[in-house]
Amino acid sequence: MVRRMAITDLLLGRPLATDEESEQRVGVLAGIPMLGLDALGSSAYGPEAALTLLIPLGAQGLGYIGPISTLIIILLLIVYFSYRQTIAAYPHGGGSYTVARENLGTTAGLLAAAALMLDYVLVVAVGISAGVGALVSALPALQPHTLALCLAILGLITIVNLRGVRESGLAFMAPTYLFVVSLLVVLAIGVVKTALAAGHPEPVVAPPRLPAAAAAASLWIFMRAFANGCTAMTGVEAVSNGVGAFREPSVLYARRTLTAIIMLLAVMLAGIAFLCRAYGVGATEPGAAGYQSIISQLVAAVIGRGFFYYVTIGSVLAVLALSANTGFADFPRLCRVVAQDGFLPAAFAHRGRRLVYSHGILVLAALSAGLLIAFGGITDHLIPLFAVGAFLAFTLSQAGMVAHWRRAGGAHSAKSMAINAAGAVCTAVTLGVVLVSKFHEGAWIMVLLVPSLLALFVGVRKHYQGIGRQVATDEPLDARDLVPPIVLVPIRGWSTVTRKALRFALKVSPEVYALHVADDERTLADLEDTWARRVREPALAAGLNPPRLIVITSPYRRLYTPLLETVRELQNAQPDRDIAVIVPEMVGSRWYHYLLHNQTAAVIKAYLFFSGFRRVVVINVPWYLSA
Amino acid sequence: MVRRMAITDLLLGRPLATDEESEQRVGVLAGIPMLGLDALGSSAYGPEAALTLLIPLGAQGLGYIGPISTLIIILLLIVYFSYRQTIAAYPHGGGSYTVARENLGTTAGLLAAAALMLDYVLVVAVGISAGVGALVSALPALQPHTLALCLAILGLITIVNLRGVRESGLAFMAPTYLFVVSLLVVLAIGVVKTALAAGHPEPVVAPPRLPAAAAAASLWIFMRAFANGCTAMTGVEAVSNGVGAFREPSVLYARRTLTAIIMLLAVMLAGIAFLCRAYGVGATEPGAAGYQSIISQLVAAVIGRGFFYYVTIGSVLAVLALSANTGFADFPRLCRVVAQDGFLPAAFAHRGRRLVYSHGILVLAALSAGLLIAFGGITDHLIPLFAVGAFLAFTLSQAGMVAHWRRAGGAHSAKSMAINAAGAVCTAVTLGVVLVSKFHEGAWIMVLLVPSLLALFVGVRKHYQGIGRQVATDEPLDARDLVPPIVLVPIRGWSTVTRKALRFALKVSPEVYALHVADDERTLADLEDTWARRVREPALAAGLNPPRLIVITSPYRRLYTPLLETVRELQNAQPDRDIAVIVPEMVGSRWYHYLLHNQTAAVIKAYLFFSGFRRVVVINVPWYLSA
Repeated sequence: MVRRMAITDLLLGRPLATDEESEQRVGVLAGIPMLGLDALGSSAYGPEAALTLLIPLGAQGLGYIGPISTLIIILLLIVYFSYRQTIAAYPHGGGSYTVARENLGTTAGLLAAAALMLDYVLVVAVGISAGVGALVSALPALQPHTLALCLAILGLITIVNLRGVRESGLAFMAPTYLFVVSLLVVLAIGVVKTALAAGHPEPVVAPPRLPAAAAAASLWIFMRAFANGCTAMTGVEAVSNGVGAFREPSVLYARRTLTAIIMLLAVMLAGIAFLCRAYGVGATEPGAAGYQSIISQLVAAVIGRGFFYYVTIGSVLAVLALSANTGFADFPRLCRVVAQDGFLPAAFAHRGRRLVYSHGILVLAALSAGLLIAFGGITDHLIPLFAVGAFLAFTLSQAGMVAHWRRAGGAHSAKSMAINAAGAVCTAVTLGVVLVSKFHEGAWIMVLLVPSLLALFVGVRKHYQGIGRQVATDEPLDARDLVPPIVLVPIRGWSTVTRKALRFALKVSPEVYALHVADDERTLADLEDTWARRVREPALAAGLNPPRLIVITSPYRRLYTPLLETVRELQNAQPDRDIAVIVPEMVGSRWYHYLLHNQTAAVIKAYLFFSGFRRVVVINVPWYLSA
Repeated sequence: MVRRMAITDLLLGRPLATDEESEQRVGVLAGIPMLGLDALGSSAYGPEAALTLLIPLGAQGLGYIGPISTLIIILLLIVYFSYRQTIAAYPHGGGSYTVARENLGTTAGLLAAAALMLDYVLVVAVGISAGVGALVSALPALQPHTLALCLAILGLITIVNLRGVRESGLAFMAPTYLFVVSLLVVLAIGVVKTALAAGHPEPVVAPPRLPAAAAAASLWIFMRAFANGCTAMTGVEAVSNGVGAFREPSVLYARRTLTAIIMLLAVMLAGIAFLCRAYGVGATEPGAAGYQSIISQLVAAVIGRGFFYYVTIGSVLAVLALSANTGFADFPRLCRVVAQDGFLPAAFAHRGRRLVYSHGILVLAALSAGLLIAFGGITDHLIPLFAVGAFLAFTLSQAGMVAHWRRAGGAHSAKSMAINAAGAVCTAVTLGVVLVSKFHEGAWIMVLLVPSLLALFVGVRKHYQGIGRQVATDEPLDARDLVPPIVLVPIRGWSTVTRKALRFALKVSPEVYALHVADDERTLADLEDTWARRVREPALAAGLNPPRLIVITSPYRRLYTPLLETVRELQNAQPDRDIAVIVPEMVGSRWYHYLLHNQTAAVIKAYLFFSGFRRVVVINVPWYLSA
């Protein structure tokens, strides 16, 4: 940690003290990009995911995008009213995990947590791959580099997030608003043109011709297209989970933010569906040459491939790629809550550098990278996995709210319960539709992963409880027969660092040894002379037992073996004494000093602790470099 | 370190003590795969790299593969005799860095080191990408996943190498010998068939038709094809650099290993060139659909696409991918030597887990992954960079040997000098040819990178020297006015861990404080009661100054801010006293105990050391878990 902080300061910024946290809270304007990027960005891949399944129907398939989008928008509004209530009931942040756990029990809570965690990984992977999909639509020459582009963008977002919340808020605000405004402008122009042309506008750049129908319409295709399209709703829970990130009064700001996000999303989904129909825009085969995203086709059809086209597509790329940021904001938070309940390693409960949860961020980045590589960076392959997790979490959260109102009772609770019950039923039905219709295409992966995560949670908790029992004690402090430890200081030569370490050693014990590993007879004689003059004499003059110098010759200057042997000998000679090894550490510099190599402190500690000595203690004495 | 060792033991195996090292040394049979995989594997991409440049010549181009291969084999033999002498002169391992530095000066040595380091990165990237090239030749359906396959294989090799030398030796022996034997069998069958058919054998599976000539033959094309083909020689220096890995007498074993590697390589290069000509096998466009590697075409032409074809291609994949292992064996070793001379961070000089140099391995893996992603996993794009580094290092090493013999004098030295001089001149000329003919295609990247690395080396050295001056001192130990430190123990509750920490605290100082961060009034009252009974009373009974309990209330149980504030207050109250913070650490378990979160020890240390307290010392008291 000490070392890494020094090395990574440049890249990741100065670590923030915990006190600075309250300044980092946001309002509506900053909250929309921070918690709504995923929800808003999903308008760019949700309709496309639905249309991709309608490809076999040819031109006829476009007729279904209207009903499908209407269904999705109705579902979205139901979920909206449901989550408004969650925000009010859980002003400190009520993610699906918290709500399900408190109202339905631990298992339901962990189920929601598992579903959400997997979903956040997918948010990151899908957001980035869809963004790159937009990019290669505009610049087809980049298509062979799809995966490399995805990974590069993932790396960038990871670094931004390791820097902390406020920076991400600012960095993501401009592209979000550019995306919303430019897409709304294009949609408005398209609607006006359509109205003026009596429903049959002339495209500026004609979209690719729709293929001839290769299959007949069926309820099955409709269901699968609807299931795919539901991914347009993912990310809606982010606000309720992140209430804690808003400034006071946080419930008010959170609700306003949620309202803004939902309304913008609904308008965009409706507009896209309407114009796809009007302009005859259908999906193209994902991952194949000639692929072009729906948004790219639509914008080109409405306003042509001019400057504004590239501005819009650029903002789509930015927002989609950065919608991954919702995952980066929420995954570490969720891990923290679960870790605080003892179901994940305590490391996740830590605030890392700059007030964010570094461990969660790094795990998320690694998992998303794995997913992108496994699926070649193609959005369409990831969609089925995505919808399962989101709707499982929605359902559990809203079912939990129903239980909440039942317990609460009172005047408003019946109405509130009805709203949440409607949400729970609708999302449960949707989850069923997704599971059945997309099982073969990837939903089965989630059916395996969610229980595996549950098992992990339970195992971690058991382990912690075991340790708790192991260290529990009622015995009082044993204050008898206290003898100072034997102190051992490994040294490489005479320096200010050695001086400071020896002085500290003499403060805690009258029995001090210094260990020098020599490879050369000449420097050895020098050191023994130095020792007599610079250590023995002053110690004797002060009336102290002088530190003794132990010299071990080792041809390759290996430090560890001689150190372990010395500790073993000292331990054998006086088995009841503690042995304290003093390790100087360089602080404030990028590299360690020659006296002790970089990381030597950590390595010495590891060697000593893992070598089975039961009475060894390590003392780190810092040395502050002025350079 | 402590924590990571516990977590990674499962994956990476038990850490080895330094004593076990001598058992890890190898003989010829294990030495060939360990140090020769790259050299042998390059027979699979060197001829192909040359032939790729002859594509525009159509069928006529095949006429050039004979002369080009002959030139390369002659060069190979010159380099062989040159390196035999290096092994004898440097029995502890004479890499180009050591030889150039000792004989031509530091700058030449660092130049060689920079060239070699970049080359090892390329060995890894090219080996893996060429292996995947063989795989997608056999299974064309995998071609879209080229990059993902490359990265997966890289990950696998990295883990094997982090486990240590012996395992890699064993894991790589079988595929190497399978590759050598099956390729030699195919070549022998092909030569016999060609002889029986009077030079015009009938292919079992006809190779793709060669395109019509699109360009006329020219010296320029010949030069560029030769430059590309020279990559068949990379890896030859590995043995001379790795003499230290052989068992005694290491010079003998190293020379025999080098001889075996060079002879096998020469035979394979000659056989491949002969049969390409006889069967009319030319290169296909790399990275494009329909790509098929030379080896795949050749094996199919000689024996058909039966079982033995897949065995051979499987061994090619394995060996090419694992030829990367040469890089993993040598890059960390080279970094270690350079770091010991002070030109790289000392961390590289460390032996990490299982006796290998973990830092070097991880840096190499990261750089290779970056290169694979940047170049899309296509071997052909990497070839120009590759040859520059190799031949720069060859030239410097052999020029160094010339200087060595001049200084040595004596009977044999004139002959030896002549051999090394021939090597130096030939490789220097080749380097010139490569630089000129491949400058635009990537050699320029090396022309930028090598000086940048040189600058890095010099900067690191300067920094170390600066620190050395800073801590240098002639002042003797100050043994006056020694006062025990104030000891502060952060605690979460009463447990065996707290007991042990407090007992140690009382051994080193009469002034001990315990700090508890409370979030709850009830547990607080409990703790104060516990403290009186379990700590105050026994301490008073033993006649000691009892440890005092400091309680700070903090709503979110944040430990760090209260800890820093307490240290600051103690420091202000007694500015001349050292303050020792005792941090218990859990050892032997995967997760930390609830008392102190995982990594809490490291985080506390970092917070304390970086907060600018000049008199703070951290004491780690281990607690060994039995589970």
